[in-house]
Amino acid sequence: MSAGKIYGVGLGPGDPDLMSVRADRLLRNARHVAFFRKPGRSGQARKIVNGMIPEDAIEFPMEYPVTTEIPLSDPRYNELLSAFYKDCAARLKALSDQGEDVIVLCEGDPFFYGSFMHIYNRLRGEVNVDVVPAITGMSGAWTATGDPITWGDDVLTILMGTLPEEDLAQRMAQTDALVVMKIGRNINKVKRALQKAGVYERAWIVEYAQMPNQTVTKLSEACDKVTPYFSIIIVHGQGRRP
Amino acid sequence: MSAGKIYGVGLGPGDPDLMSVRADRLLRNARHVAFFRKPGRSGQARKIVNGMIPEDAIEFPMEYPVTTEIPLSDPRYNELLSAFYKDCAARLKALSDQGEDVIVLCEGDPFFYGSFMHIYNRLRGEVNVDVVPAITGMSGAWTATGDPITWGDDVLTILMGTLPEEDLAQRMAQTDALVVMKIGRNINKVKRALQKAGVYERAWIVEYAQMPNQTVTKLSEACDKVTPYFSIIIVHGQGRRP
Repeated sequence: MSAGKIYGVGLGPGDPDLMSVRADRLLRNARHVAFFRKPGRSGQARKIVNGMIPEDAIEFPMEYPVTTEIPLSDPRYNELLSAFYKDCAARLKALSDQGEDVIVLCEGDPFFYGSFMHIYNRLRGEVNVDVVPAITGMSGAWTATGDPITWGDDVLTILMGTLPEEDLAQRMAQTDALVVMKIGRNINKVKRALQKAGVYERAWIVEYAQMPNQTVTKLSEACDKVTPYFSIIIVHGQGRRP
Repeated sequence: MSAGKIYGVGLGPGDPDLMSVRADRLLRNARHVAFFRKPGRSGQARKIVNGMIPEDAIEFPMEYPVTTEIPLSDPRYNELLSAFYKDCAARLKALSDQGEDVIVLCEGDPFFYGSFMHIYNRLRGEVNVDVVPAITGMSGAWTATGDPITWGDDVLTILMGTLPEEDLAQRMAQTDALVVMKIGRNINKVKRALQKAGVYERAWIVEYAQMPNQTVTKLSEACDKVTPYFSIIIVHGQGRRP
């Protein structure tokens, strides 16, 4: 095993006050800080820790070779991303072999649909990796609505907006409470699926949950006002409540 | 609205180091601390904050009139709990009317199958209530397994062990990743449902996630070694991974 340690640190939904005490301490003492971003952008994860990490921390931006320019179904997408994660993992391993600790910034919770998992899977067994769980973006979103997400025996289903419309509609109709993530350019498909499932009128869309620019809107009233990239759709459960 | 404020503070899975910075600050400055417990017990939530809340904080234990002594289906169960939550809400409101702030301790995330929601729903509109989200017990559990819960487009389903066996089995068979909570005396029913769904061999049981007495065991090897009350069952997704 390596001399140094890699920390996959969940940052939570975006408010530094909602990070864990452990994440806060690790960040304020960081020497190496790695984070994902799109080329030419500052990166959402890096923005969240502005003013928290030491000024002399060494930053390692890991720039996605592709995000939405190539469809997921194109084999090149997988090849490009696979090579990218392999390269990131090798560079992090090199640092830890030198005895350095590295903090990898993870939006939300690292093991819940996170990019860090692809590095984690390439490093486990060779490098000491410590994963710090965090408040998920969806917890941030349902708290923002001011209504509990699940009661009693409610079934909660979490769906990605990238799934086919029919699959979305069928699963939306069969659950008590619902969270939809990865909405982005899938917004119109997701809306149609919610309508087919008969839950469109109960759906809320939360943008930038727990951040200063947070908005909470009934989806049926959101029209084109929302930019869906950092959005989460919520349908609350209505289960048993004494 | 009341002069004081009620804070529903999520404590996360149980490790004080995994509480949010906001929860930590609220607890260390608390004047009134309310929490649920079974009569005659110290209460899991209260135990988590041992040594954190000020010595002169005024404690308000809210003792459940019934937990598992009466079946959920018995109308008396609902009546007793309803009267209990009404009484708790009235006592918290009286404190906040006097201008006092009260911290209500919530295991996990307050809006995710929490008891606090029943008080929240009785106070909203009349009392200033602030809900602090937290790391869910299930995030603590899947992090403890050392394997990510969801990849790519994986569907995640969260089920309560209190549901009927057939319903459990059907939903377990139709999801990619799975979390089962409220296991307790439902453990044998949950096991049979996992077997029917063909996912028993992939299931893990995590007891006391993120606490000093944490255990992580393959369910098929757990036999009767686990005491399932504070346990969460996890079946990991196997979705797209470049």
